Amino acid sequence: MAVIAIQAQGAMGAGMGRHLTQRGATVLTSLAGRSAASARRAAEAGMRDATPEEMAGADIVLSVLPPAEARACAQWLAPALAAAPRKAVYVDCNAISPETAKEVAAIIAPTGAAFVDGGISGGPPREDGYTPALYVSGEEAERLAPLREHGLDVRVTPGPIGAASALKMSYAGITKGLVALSSAMMLAATRAGAAEGLRAELERSQPQLLAWFRRMVPPMPDKAYRWVGEMEEIADFTGPEAAAIYQAIARFYEDMAADQAGPREKAATLSRFLGGPAQG
Amino acid sequence: MAVIAIQAQGAMGAGMGRHLTQRGATVLTSLAGRSAASARRAAEAGMRDATPEEMAGADIVLSVLPPAEARACAQWLAPALAAAPRKAVYVDCNAISPETAKEVAAIIAPTGAAFVDGGISGGPPREDGYTPALYVSGEEAERLAPLREHGLDVRVTPGPIGAASALKMSYAGITKGLVALSSAMMLAATRAGAAEGLRAELERSQPQLLAWFRRMVPPMPDKAYRWVGEMEEIADFTGPEAAAIYQAIARFYEDMAADQAGPREKAATLSRFLGGPAQG
Repeated sequence: MAVIAIQAQGAMGAGMGRHLTQRGATVLTSLAGRSAASARRAAEAGMRDATPEEMAGADIVLSVLPPAEARACAQWLAPALAAAPRKAVYVDCNAISPETAKEVAAIIAPTGAAFVDGGISGGPPREDGYTPALYVSGEEAERLAPLREHGLDVRVTPGPIGAASALKMSYAGITKGLVALSSAMMLAATRAGAAEGLRAELERSQPQLLAWFRRMVPPMPDKAYRWVGEMEEIADFTGPEAAAIYQAIARFYEDMAADQAGPREKAATLSRFLGGPAQG
Repeated sequence: MAVIAIQAQGAMGAGMGRHLTQRGATVLTSLAGRSAASARRAAEAGMRDATPEEMAGADIVLSVLPPAEARACAQWLAPALAAAPRKAVYVDCNAISPETAKEVAAIIAPTGAAFVDGGISGGPPREDGYTPALYVSGEEAERLAPLREHGLDVRVTPGPIGAASALKMSYAGITKGLVALSSAMMLAATRAGAAEGLRAELERSQPQLLAWFRRMVPPMPDKAYRWVGEMEEIADFTGPEAAAIYQAIARFYEDMAADQAGPREKAATLSRFLGGPAQG
């Protein structure tokens, strides 16, 4: 039975924790300094509160955090990893650019622990058995077999450290980028009195895109605050060619998050647009 | 039999001209100062070279130009429209923002000619009978019935002058925006060695988007130079919320056009990516 450490206990981290504990793994996490909500999610997931030393003694350590916290997590655990007699595999699963992934790898390297670059595609595991894909790359990626044995969808992607992050960045750049563009245009068309015309034209000539928007846009306003940092990582990833596009999309999601924390007018407008004539 | 004036004779203007002449309309255009290629396209389309005064005497005048030339066309024809005893309907069909459309309307207003705001969705008419949709708005839009009688797909969209332009802007903002984002991410993934992984993930979880990219991305590099001005008009249209996104997309298309005028490396990379393993 594998011992897996997961830091921290957000919807994704706790979801993966629950998925693993329900399939026989022991899952450790550190609740030091975390919120009551995190502690509750961890408890519900069957995750056990642990010290950094206990975490470092796990077979596999998964870092599952907002992108801005990826480096800090590695720095926090590095002394315990360095002191551990048996070396874990440290997997950075965060939505960070390949360059940031290499920085995290450089923090882990001196500890003697193995490093694997990872990227999660999809939402948190659900009670119905759904799991997202965890793409991993790097020489040590094959050491993650225990995760697969406990039900996670681990996929080794060809390439060195950074390849899994690049896959995650480019995939999210397309999907979350399109959510931003379509939302911006639905909002602008509505302000210009052209919502009905735009919806009719999409129904006529882009019915598959419209169906995609109906599925992907409504959950966005509540997640927009989390996507800001991810869009900034994508701007780093893409380089000068398209960095300004993703910086601007990050600002769009920042405005969306501010609206969602306040009047929620944008979410209401998008919902009316996508609801179609019946609900509009 | 209606007399229609079309300025100028690009792929879209000449295509519309041919479609109308083949269905019985007389189509006038001004070749003064235009290229030999334009004159050839006009002749093949059955369009007749005409003076501004003859153009202004038409039943309907269609302005079909790159967005940056929309104002100049109205200014050029305004004296002839003002002098004409019988007043034409002037239709701005260009990919301009609603604000720019109102500026063009203000140039036409003193001439006594009617003004209709238009926006074309789709590619030029083809010999197989395909025509794009010409969305029109404004009080005088119903006066365009002769275009419909000669085979053009004219659709009156609700709302004042500016509504058809808003529809065109928001539709193109979604479709041409997505072409830019997906191209940028395919290029970045390829540079990072993650092309194979990204394509596999798209095939697995976004097969409809990948099919859309295979259809919409390959024709883009040759058109990128024309899309720069259109993206700038969309930036005007969308306002502060997303203007920076579309300004950055305009720069992306500018870089793409420069590459297409030179080494064509980006087009080759996109083509390899979309070709899939068989051709890759």
